[in-house]
Amino acid sequence: MATFSTLAYFPITIRFSWNRASSYDPNKKSLNNIKINGTSTKSTTQLDMASALTSVAYISEQQVRQNIPTTKQFVDHYRQGMIIEGGVGYRQRVVIRSYEVGPDKTVTLESILNLLQETALNHVWMSGLLSDGFGATHGMMKHDLIWVVSRMQVEVDHYPIWGEVLEIDTWVGASGKNGMRRDWLIRSEATGHVFASATSTWVMMNRTTRRLSKMPEEVRAEIAPWFIEKQAITEDVLEKIVKLDNKAKYMNNDLKPKRSDLDMNQHVNNVKYVRWMLETIPDQILEAHQLTSIILEYRRECGSSDIVQSLCQPDEDGILKDGLKQDKETSLVNGFSLAAEILEGNGFLASFGNQKLRYTHLLKIDGESQNDEIVRGRTTWKKKSFSP
Amino acid sequence: MATFSTLAYFPITIRFSWNRASSYDPNKKSLNNIKINGTSTKSTTQLDMASALTSVAYISEQQVRQNIPTTKQFVDHYRQGMIIEGGVGYRQRVVIRSYEVGPDKTVTLESILNLLQETALNHVWMSGLLSDGFGATHGMMKHDLIWVVSRMQVEVDHYPIWGEVLEIDTWVGASGKNGMRRDWLIRSEATGHVFASATSTWVMMNRTTRRLSKMPEEVRAEIAPWFIEKQAITEDVLEKIVKLDNKAKYMNNDLKPKRSDLDMNQHVNNVKYVRWMLETIPDQILEAHQLTSIILEYRRECGSSDIVQSLCQPDEDGILKDGLKQDKETSLVNGFSLAAEILEGNGFLASFGNQKLRYTHLLKIDGESQNDEIVRGRTTWKKKSFSP
Repeated sequence: MATFSTLAYFPITIRFSWNRASSYDPNKKSLNNIKINGTSTKSTTQLDMASALTSVAYISEQQVRQNIPTTKQFVDHYRQGMIIEGGVGYRQRVVIRSYEVGPDKTVTLESILNLLQETALNHVWMSGLLSDGFGATHGMMKHDLIWVVSRMQVEVDHYPIWGEVLEIDTWVGASGKNGMRRDWLIRSEATGHVFASATSTWVMMNRTTRRLSKMPEEVRAEIAPWFIEKQAITEDVLEKIVKLDNKAKYMNNDLKPKRSDLDMNQHVNNVKYVRWMLETIPDQILEAHQLTSIILEYRRECGSSDIVQSLCQPDEDGILKDGLKQDKETSLVNGFSLAAEILEGNGFLASFGNQKLRYTHLLKIDGESQNDEIVRGRTTWKKKSFSP
Repeated sequence: MATFSTLAYFPITIRFSWNRASSYDPNKKSLNNIKINGTSTKSTTQLDMASALTSVAYISEQQVRQNIPTTKQFVDHYRQGMIIEGGVGYRQRVVIRSYEVGPDKTVTLESILNLLQETALNHVWMSGLLSDGFGATHGMMKHDLIWVVSRMQVEVDHYPIWGEVLEIDTWVGASGKNGMRRDWLIRSEATGHVFASATSTWVMMNRTTRRLSKMPEEVRAEIAPWFIEKQAITEDVLEKIVKLDNKAKYMNNDLKPKRSDLDMNQHVNNVKYVRWMLETIPDQILEAHQLTSIILEYRRECGSSDIVQSLCQPDEDGILKDGLKQDKETSLVNGFSLAAEILEGNGFLASFGNQKLRYTHLLKIDGESQNDEIVRGRTTWKKKSFSP
């Protein structure tokens, strides 16, 4: 499992400052201009401040600088975010930055995963439930719980380019008795075209014992009012991702986490997992294809001293099936007969044409332990429609 | 030299669309509501569109999606940017994202460098000078020129944390006859405190021949009106960064660029250089210290097939001099006499206390060639004031 880990408490405390405190509300600037029944909301804000004084006399420097809201917000001008879906979903406008695109000039999968994490956290931020942790609510902090992701699925139809303006919607729902589902939709702001969709499943882990935990009633009471049924991806019957062994076709051994790969909880960041997975696929395939789907099933955490192995196996069945189903014309257009591909049984040859490629992945701790799996994955790729 | 390289032309062209074209102006939404002499600016926009038709009948899909302005803009609501400094500087508001912070919970140097690149490009974006390249002007495109950075210096006084709101100012000035200086200031929006400052020097390179070029008069005419004298960092007499050899104390060999390290021009990205440099410093030093200054002198490009070596040498003189000058009390407070440090002459021991550490760096192509230097660097570090 990969931790979405808690932020340890910042030990420097400073005197509560009135000027700073009154800026905790990201909506302050616009709200101060709104008149309600002839009264500026400024006086309301001052009342809020006065009541805050009775409960919190000191706050940490981090709290002042992070400025996390303690009540539900509806608009965040700084992050260009707003509450949608009848008060429970979150939408953020994002402009693709120059360093978020790869050598093929489109946004990288890593940047997409980063933006999913960012908007999820900003959703919790807006809810007023965010405690001093990495997405944890006040109730979770009280029970020493952190979020861990157990499954993530991303479908990418179209890769945004540098400077493109996107709208990312995210919302949560129930997943079984003790889990939470989080979904996302990424759209072009200009056209409304859906570029990508994603779904994920989260469970709670005790930060100290590292054991999975039931969802305490107190936490359910916090988050259940935010649950909606809507799903970004309609799941087919889930096809099991097999566990690869050392007979896998492609393999990268001896992967060592660097300091810069670690997240706030000194664990290897999710995005690094994906990088390790994809780098195991040969470059000539990566250059000619773009990922259309990735499924990740997280099994255990990876620490900074672990040595990691990345295994990857092309899924020949997948190629042939997809080829037969979808690409008869394409293979003729390209001057390759489908029969030749079947005889060849070769993933790289099949990449001429619009056939989909499919790979099964495994990241594991190097060693003979039974409990060595970090994450199983499956990726699906299509031929790029233009050269970089 | 590291290229800030051009974006190759996107081969897909689509029919010029009136609806889309009228949205090229990022200020459209607000401008359309402004009445000038009783006439909505909408009709002006339509006139502009009509004159545009005569010169450009087709634009690429990329142009529509990127939406690069063709005339100077003063406000960019999408990027939260605005023109300052009497019309020639650029300011952008930025919120530190969850994935931009490292294991010590503060923003990473890599994220700072990314944000400097981003704001520089957005400055050119606002100017109306940006052509279909990575920061290149229309005149540069015409002469097949790209920007390459020859020197970069960043001073970090204070590292922002997750969720912190920053203002980044950037502007340009002359550097000799053929170069350009670009400076930055990063401030806390809440307090105005300057967290970091940076300066850089840029020259032009022919994209095809890879040789440095004089600045054509046509390009000077485009960019000189934007030059101002103000400097973010007042340079002392420049101290030469020596070239390290294989006797350097710390060394990482056999560094191979991965696909994900390459930028739009298939060259290793600047930020990767810095990662390779810093990873050569032992972890126990990195964990206890924070970088306060980095100077990079770029010598040549690094391609995807190059094997790179990272050399690093602690600067004992620097430690002792700084120790003598600044840290008498600190070393007593910590129970270490300065004399012991001098006798020990040990960078790691000196890290107890607030002494500065200084390192000289070299990234080079593995091999015996004379022309093997990619970048020389110097970093300065101070003891962290709190543990992660």
